[in-house]
Amino acid sequence: MITGKNYIGDNLSSNSSVTFQTFNPKLNIENDITFYEASDSEIQKSVELAFQAFKKYKLVSSVEKSKFLNQIADELQLISNDIVNIYCSETGLSEARCLAELTRTINQLRSFSELLINGDFQEVSIDTSIPNRVPAPKPDLRKMLMPLGPVAVFGASNFPLAYSTAGGDTASALAAGCPVILKSHPMHAGTGEVVSAAIIRAVKITNMPNGVFSNLNSKGIEVGEKLVNNPRVKAVGFTGSLRGGRAIYDLASRRDNPIPVFAEMGSVNPVLIFPEKLHKEYAELAEKFAKSITIGSGQFCTNPGIIISFESEIFDLFIKNLVEEIEKLSPSCMLHPNIYNAYINGIENIKKNKHISVLTKEDSESKANFPKHVISSVKAKNFIQDKKLQDEIFGPCSLIVKCLDENEMLQVINSMEGQLTGTILADTNENFLGEKIINALELKVGRIIFNGVPTGVEVCPSMTHGGPYPASTDSRFSAVGTNSIKRWLRPVSFQDFPQNLLPNELKNDNPLMINRKINGIASKNEI
Amino acid sequence: MITGKNYIGDNLSSNSSVTFQTFNPKLNIENDITFYEASDSEIQKSVELAFQAFKKYKLVSSVEKSKFLNQIADELQLISNDIVNIYCSETGLSEARCLAELTRTINQLRSFSELLINGDFQEVSIDTSIPNRVPAPKPDLRKMLMPLGPVAVFGASNFPLAYSTAGGDTASALAAGCPVILKSHPMHAGTGEVVSAAIIRAVKITNMPNGVFSNLNSKGIEVGEKLVNNPRVKAVGFTGSLRGGRAIYDLASRRDNPIPVFAEMGSVNPVLIFPEKLHKEYAELAEKFAKSITIGSGQFCTNPGIIISFESEIFDLFIKNLVEEIEKLSPSCMLHPNIYNAYINGIENIKKNKHISVLTKEDSESKANFPKHVISSVKAKNFIQDKKLQDEIFGPCSLIVKCLDENEMLQVINSMEGQLTGTILADTNENFLGEKIINALELKVGRIIFNGVPTGVEVCPSMTHGGPYPASTDSRFSAVGTNSIKRWLRPVSFQDFPQNLLPNELKNDNPLMINRKINGIASKNEI
Repeated sequence: MITGKNYIGDNLSSNSSVTFQTFNPKLNIENDITFYEASDSEIQKSVELAFQAFKKYKLVSSVEKSKFLNQIADELQLISNDIVNIYCSETGLSEARCLAELTRTINQLRSFSELLINGDFQEVSIDTSIPNRVPAPKPDLRKMLMPLGPVAVFGASNFPLAYSTAGGDTASALAAGCPVILKSHPMHAGTGEVVSAAIIRAVKITNMPNGVFSNLNSKGIEVGEKLVNNPRVKAVGFTGSLRGGRAIYDLASRRDNPIPVFAEMGSVNPVLIFPEKLHKEYAELAEKFAKSITIGSGQFCTNPGIIISFESEIFDLFIKNLVEEIEKLSPSCMLHPNIYNAYINGIENIKKNKHISVLTKEDSESKANFPKHVISSVKAKNFIQDKKLQDEIFGPCSLIVKCLDENEMLQVINSMEGQLTGTILADTNENFLGEKIINALELKVGRIIFNGVPTGVEVCPSMTHGGPYPASTDSRFSAVGTNSIKRWLRPVSFQDFPQNLLPNELKNDNPLMINRKINGIASKNEI
Repeated sequence: MITGKNYIGDNLSSNSSVTFQTFNPKLNIENDITFYEASDSEIQKSVELAFQAFKKYKLVSSVEKSKFLNQIADELQLISNDIVNIYCSETGLSEARCLAELTRTINQLRSFSELLINGDFQEVSIDTSIPNRVPAPKPDLRKMLMPLGPVAVFGASNFPLAYSTAGGDTASALAAGCPVILKSHPMHAGTGEVVSAAIIRAVKITNMPNGVFSNLNSKGIEVGEKLVNNPRVKAVGFTGSLRGGRAIYDLASRRDNPIPVFAEMGSVNPVLIFPEKLHKEYAELAEKFAKSITIGSGQFCTNPGIIISFESEIFDLFIKNLVEEIEKLSPSCMLHPNIYNAYINGIENIKKNKHISVLTKEDSESKANFPKHVISSVKAKNFIQDKKLQDEIFGPCSLIVKCLDENEMLQVINSMEGQLTGTILADTNENFLGEKIINALELKVGRIIFNGVPTGVEVCPSMTHGGPYPASTDSRFSAVGTNSIKRWLRPVSFQDFPQNLLPNELKNDNPLMINRKINGIASKNEI
C-alpha cells in the first residue's frame, strides 16, 4: 500500500498541497498514485530529527549498526514482489533487471554490515606516550574515524534501487554512523516509498533512533536545494547528471560552512581499440560492444560512449559489424519521457554536426520512449577541436573516433575530461600499445579495463567508481565498494585521555577485538 | 647568497619589475634584499614544468622518491646556519625557535621518506577473479592510490619552515608523487629562497625531473589566484587565515574543473576547566596556560583562545593567577607589523564590547611589534549571543567564558564553530564531566586533549590537525602526520590487466615487497 507521503523519521506526512505522479514509460501513461511534495516544515523536521538521531546513533555500537543494515536487507528481501511491481511500472525496466538490482542492493547492505564487524574502516591508530623523551615528552595519541553528521542523499534516476533509497550512498552513510535524509527521485517515488517503509521497519525492529532515516518526495529542485543549504546537513551524496551534480556542489561550496559533496556524474567512458586485437576478434568485439552500449537502454554511467581506434580497413570492418549487431537488437524502454526526449535531442544535435557521420539507419519514427540505437563517427582532429562532442548523451549510442596514428590517439586522450572508466582492447604485445597510452589514460579515469566492457561495476574493495571531474566532484573517493564509507568519516584524535573516557575502539584492552595500528604495527593486541 | 628571484624549476628568474622587501620586526626596519614578484609568464612556466615533471615523477619509484625527500632533509641540515640568519631577520622569532622548527621540518621530511618505503600509504588492494561465478564471472580488480597532479602550496606566515617551503604540505605532496609549486609567504621570502635552493639541489642530486618544485615570490594575492585558477593545478594546500583560506577555496570550487583545497585556517581552541581539577591545581594550571597562550607570541593555530568554566570562587582564583602569570611574562616580537596591527585592532574591538571585561593591566604603549598579553572575560550568555566573539584574535590573548552551570557550558560548546582542538581539564571522576560534554565537544574538533595544552602538535600517525569548518575546509583529512599524504592521492583501479602492463605495486609477484590486501587479507604474499 503506497501512500504517496513523505517519511519524516517514522511518521508518514503530507503537509503540502503540491503533488505529482510517476509515469509508466512502457504504457506511456501517468501512474495513479499521488505523491506529496515535502513541505518546508517537513524538510526542517526531517533534518532536525536526523541531528537529534545523530547524537544517539553515533554512540550505537558497530555490532548494533551492523544488525540494522542486515535487517534492512532482510526487509527488502521479504518484499521483493512489491518492489518488482512498483519498480517496473515506474521505470520501464524489466523484472529481471529489477531482481538483479535488488540483489545488488541487498548485497551492498550486507557487505557494509560485515565491514562494521571487523572495524578496519575506522582506521584506529594508537601512538603511546614517551614521557621521558627529550626535548619534550611524547603524548599518548589515539585516533579513529568518526561520522560527519546527517547526510543528504539524492536518489539516482537510472538505479532506482542500487543507487537510490537504500542504495550505496545510504548504506555507506548509515554504516559510517550518519543519519540519512533521502531526496527521493521523482521518477520512481513509489519504489522509494516501498523501500523507505522497509528501512523504517528495520529502524524499529533494531531500536535505532527515530530520524536516522527520512524520505522526502519532490518533483523539482527546491527540496534538494533546501536540504543542501541546511546547516545541520554535513555532507551530500548524489548520482546523476553533470548539471544536477554541479548545481549541488556549487550550493554546498557556497554555504557559510561548506560541506563535502560526492557527486558521481557524467562520463563517456572512452574505449581504445588496437589493431592486433581487431584483426583477431573484430566480430566478437562488435557483438560484445553492441550489447554493452545498449544494456539498460544505454542508461548506465559506465556506458561506452566513445570508441577510439586508427583509420584502417580492419577498424572499418569492426564498425560495420558493430552497426549490424546494434541494429539487430530491439530498442528497449527508457526510464521516462524526459530522458527519452533528452536522448532524441542529443542525437539531433549530432546529426547537425557536419563532421559527424551517422552510421546506423535513419528509418521511420521510433515508438515513444523506445529509442533507436545510434552509432556515428568522427575524425579525431574534429573530435579534439569540438569539446561538445565529449558531452554525455545518456542512452544507447556511441561515437566512433578515427585517429591517424598513435600520436593523434594520445592527443584525443589528453583532450578528454575526467572519466569514470577507460577501456583498452589490445593484444598484450600490441605494437601500438605503449606505456604512454596507459599513462595518459590513467590520468583521466578512476578505473581502467583491459579487454572487457566498462558496464558492470563489481562491488568489491578494489573497485573505484569515481574519477577526475566531471566524472565525480572528488576523485579521492569511490561511490561503489566498501571504501565508499570513507566519504562520510573524519579523523578525531584523543590526546592523553583516561581509559574510562575513551571510545571503546581506543581503549587499552581492545574490548571490541578490532584491528588497530599500535605504534605503526597492525594488531588486535591489548596495550 | 639570496638573489630575490623565483625558482622556475631549477632556473632563477626575475621577469617582473614589481619588487618587495621583507621586514625585520625586532628592529622595526625593512630588510635589504629585493624580491621579484613572479610574473604571469613565470607562473605559467612553473605550472607547465610541473605538469611535464608530473608525467615523469609519477613513474619514479617510491624508493627513489624516498631518497629525494631524505636528500632535501640532508640539504637543510647542511645549511642550518644560513637558515637561522635569514629566518630570524625576517620573523622576529628566536634562534632556538628556528632550530626547533628546522628539526621538525627535517623530521617531517624523513618520516615521509620512511613512509614511502613500506608502501602502506598506497592502500594496495587486490581482488582476484572468479571466472566461474554465477550469474556473472567476477573480474580481477587491483587498486592503488595515485597522485592527483601538480599541487599549489601556500607558505604559512607563522611557520616559515614547518608549514612553508619544505614543510608538511610540500613534503606530503612530493611523497604522494605530486610536483609542488610553492607560493612563498612574502613575510619570509628570503627564508623561502634559501630552503628552495636546498630543495633544488636535492632535485639535481637525486635526478628528479626539473619542475618537480618551483618557488614563486609574491607580495599580494594575484600570484596565488592565478595558480589556483590554472587548469594544470590539481589541488591546493594552504595554512593561514580564515579569510585567505576561504578565498582560495572559493576560487578552486568555482573553476570549470573544481579541485580539492585543504586549507587549515583559524581556530580559537576552547579549553573547558572543571571544578575538582581547579581545586587541586589552579595555580599550576594558571602557570601552564599563561605559557601556552603566549608561546610564539600567541601566533600558533592551536593557541587556547577561549577558556570556559563555571562562575565560582575557585575559577576566579584561577583567573587571578592566570592574569598575574601572564603579566609576568615579557612580550615577545610578532612576525610582522601587519600581524601586530591586526592584533592591536582585535584587542581594541574587545575593549569596546560592553559585555567584556579586560582583566590584564592597561598600561602605557607597548613597543612596536611586541604586543601586550591580554586576558579578558565574558558571561556565557553574552558569548553565545555574539558570534563575533568566536573570531580568532591571532596573538597572545585569551577570553574567559563564565558559565552558570553544565547546561550553559553545553550551550557554549554547541554554539561554537569547528575547531582544530578542544581541551578538557578535569579530574577523571569529576562530577560535572559527563559524556555529554565530551560528545558535544567531539562534534566540533579534530583533536581533544585531556589535561594538557593544545599548543604542540605531535607529528605522528595518530595526530589529527584539521577539523570541521572553519578549522579546515575538509575535515576528512589532517594537515599534520603521515596521513596528510592522503590529501593528494586518489584511487585508480585496474580491471583484468595483464601482468606486464600493471604498476609494480599491483603485480602478482609483489616485486616491491609491500603490504597489500589480497581478497581482504593483508599480506606481503605473492599471488
